[in-house]
Amino acid sequence: MLYLTRKEHFNAAHRLFNPRWSEEKNDAIFGKCANKYFHGHNYDLFVTVKGKPDPDTGLIVNAKDLSAIIRKVVVDKLDHKNLNLEVDFLKDLMPSTENVARAIWLELEPHITGCQLHCVRLFETESIFAEYYGE
Amino acid sequence: MLYLTRKEHFNAAHRLFNPRWSEEKNDAIFGKCANKYFHGHNYDLFVTVKGKPDPDTGLIVNAKDLSAIIRKVVVDKLDHKNLNLEVDFLKDLMPSTENVARAIWLELEPHITGCQLHCVRLFETESIFAEYYGE
Amino acid sequence: MLYLTRKEHFNAAHRLFNPRWSEEKNDAIFGKCANKYFHGHNYDLFVTVKGKPDPDTGLIVNAKDLSAIIRKVVVDKLDHKNLNLEVDFLKDLMPSTENVARAIWLELEPHITGCQLHCVRLFETESIFAEYYGE
Amino acid sequence: MLYLTRKEHFNAAHRLFNPRWSEEKNDAIFGKCANKYFHGHNYDLFVTVKGKPDPDTGLIVNAKDLSAIIRKVVVDKLDHKNLNLEVDFLKDLMPSTENVARAIWLELEPHITGCQLHCVRLFETESIFAEYYGE
Amino acid sequence: MLYLTRKEHFNAAHRLFNPRWSEEKNDAIFGKCANKYFHGHNYDLFVTVKGKPDPDTGLIVNAKDLSAIIRKVVVDKLDHKNLNLEVDFLKDLMPSTENVARAIWLELEPHITGCQLHCVRLFETESIFAEYYGE
Amino acid sequence: MLYLTRKEHFNAAHRLFNPRWSEEKNDAIFGKCANKYFHGHNYDLFVTVKGKPDPDTGLIVNAKDLSAIIRKVVVDKLDHKNLNLEVDFLKDLMPSTENVARAIWLELEPHITGCQLHCVRLFETESIFAEYYGE
Repeated sequence: MLYLTRKEHFNAAHRLFNPRWSEEKNDAIFGKCANKYFHGHNYDLFVTVKGKPDPDTGLIVNAKDLSAIIRKVVVDKLDHKNLNLEVDFLKDLMPSTENVARAIWLELEPHITGCQLHCVRLFETESIFAEYYGE
Repeated sequence: MLYLTRKEHFNAAHRLFNPRWSEEKNDAIFGKCANKYFHGHNYDLFVTVKGKPDPDTGLIVNAKDLSAIIRKVVVDKLDHKNLNLEVDFLKDLMPSTENVARAIWLELEPHITGCQLHCVRLFETESIFAEYYGE
Repeated sequence: MLYLTRKEHFNAAHRLFNPRWSEEKNDAIFGKCANKYFHGHNYDLFVTVKGKPDPDTGLIVNAKDLSAIIRKVVVDKLDHKNLNLEVDFLKDLMPSTENVARAIWLELEPHITGCQLHCVRLFETESIFAEYYGE
Repeated sequence: MLYLTRKEHFNAAHRLFNPRWSEEKNDAIFGKCANKYFHGHNYDLFVTVKGKPDPDTGLIVNAKDLSAIIRKVVVDKLDHKNLNLEVDFLKDLMPSTENVARAIWLELEPHITGCQLHCVRLFETESIFAEYYGE
Repeated sequence: MLYLTRKEHFNAAHRLFNPRWSEEKNDAIFGKCANKYFHGHNYDLFVTVKGKPDPDTGLIVNAKDLSAIIRKVVVDKLDHKNLNLEVDFLKDLMPSTENVARAIWLELEPHITGCQLHCVRLFETESIFAEYYGE
Repeated sequence: MLYLTRKEHFNAAHRLFNPRWSEEKNDAIFGKCANKYFHGHNYDLFVTVKGKPDPDTGLIVNAKDLSAIIRKVVVDKLDHKNLNLEVDFLKDLMPSTENVARAIWLELEPHITGCQLHCVRLFETESIFAEYYGE
């Protein structure tokens, strides 16, 4: 069993905001992350798949194909977007790093064929990242 | 003459949008950077000063003091903000990397004492940065 | 189950030195790392916790709270210190990357509430890091 | 149980090319990676071992010794080489990141004593890396 | 006057080899960099332009346009290529970092309009880079 | 005229401490950087030379030769040392980033032949660096 990881990137706006709470409570819990005019990040996304290398190609998956799938299925829907307002698969979801990482897994998983999705790792900044392994 | 550089960081939302143009023209010129719901970045800010080290301290400037000035004068006004809507010193300014770098210089320069401001370098992503040297 | 990692930083002096050995034996085993006047590093500390995101916040743990705990419990005791001479929780311990990583886990673990400590990863340089998972 | 990771580096040329296929099929499958005149990479190699720190040294393994082993056993045979043409332990192997990572494991494993080899992680670019855990 | 820098990337094979010298002399001067089967690198290319931001766009140059020019004019001719054998604008040129940086400048300069090319910075590894300012 | 930069690395201990001042004044001015038991850093050193590439080699300077000079003349005297206590060319000098950068220039400059020393850039952390250009 080998693991292959491909990094992709997107830039997006978001805020941490629970619509069932008052602005005051959101400010108290989330601080400046709740700013109503949004802030944003350069997100780095690492997708890891696992499997056996194909004897003819030496590859678990063609990294260019994997990149194309990630871009089509998730990155193109996230890049230069507002994660609170514009992304179908994040609708009604708090766009925390944890939640976005898990939502990316759920979108990607049905599109990974010939190997298994192993991990989605999402960096919000160089100091904060979340990981989801599908369970 | 020696040069000292201090790195600071802020996360912000913005869009490239000229209010004198139609939405269509903004989209044509700026593409996805014009998205009306904003996007955002992790900005890295490098401030360089120049001068002679003080014989008693060996320092051009105390890096902690320089950091405190940069944070108070610019970073606290930019971090977790929307650069189009909330920053006094960016009012009526297209928040391009170039313009934000120059605006940061203009804010900071009066607060740099005992040495000279030499360069403001602002990274919007790891692939794009702007520099301003004051002239 | 999701995983969230927070990066913190400290700068410290240390030496690898076994007081039960002669200077000569320390030099033979540890080489320049045994230098009696110490050397030092910029340490990067990655703390990973695991848990379920809170339905109201979308967070396993508020990253700012986690940061505050890490700083209070370990970083403030390590930053700009000598790891051989000044840190209570490293007393009588060889300050190798491995041992310091494990000691940080032992200090931190009782302070992590609402989720579980999963991993302490400590970089001594960009080329050497240690990990401890609690067992 | 603690884990220690050491990073090493090599620069090499390679191409993805299956000699049982025509040039046309290689081009169709591997695209520009099949270029007959080769291309190349700066490879970053992370080797992780696990074990208990020695009570006298605080170390799972002396990182300098581990570095010397990695360099002698694999890096010196890979650095500034052509992975398709010159490396004994890659003979008749497609030099994909996955296959090279596994081949490095197989070379290194017999030389790791006093602790266990846990993971070989090989970066081909900053966006693609493979991992092998020995099974 | 403001400066804007755009980073691009390519992977290539090369060797340092003077065809007017014997293999022995090449080996003596260039060491393992002369390996006849080539080696390779992940090259990072930073292109800096200078000018005044356009009052309507706030930009010296649209970074996406600049990226497209760099890719078309130089990166597409260098990526996944052998710098000794396949690149028209490097013909009869020792593909040292210095020479490749200058050759990239000469190719790019006629295509930069509306602002001035200021610097081409080329990283061969993270430890070696060359810069050319056009004179 | 082309510029070539070579990166080297050393790990060292230091403190900011003016022996003509009391401990109290040192603490007041330098804060935790004055800690009497020292702290330390992973220093990254970038040395830039300028010149014309040799027509036979394409090189301003052989990067391996430049590396060997930097290591012999400065890095070997700084690596795993205490900058306040053990380095001849830092004697009686406050080991601030600025002063160490300038001292490295003064040591290196007589050893650079066939091209000119242009810049010494010294990173104390990823957030603080000093540069000296010889005047």
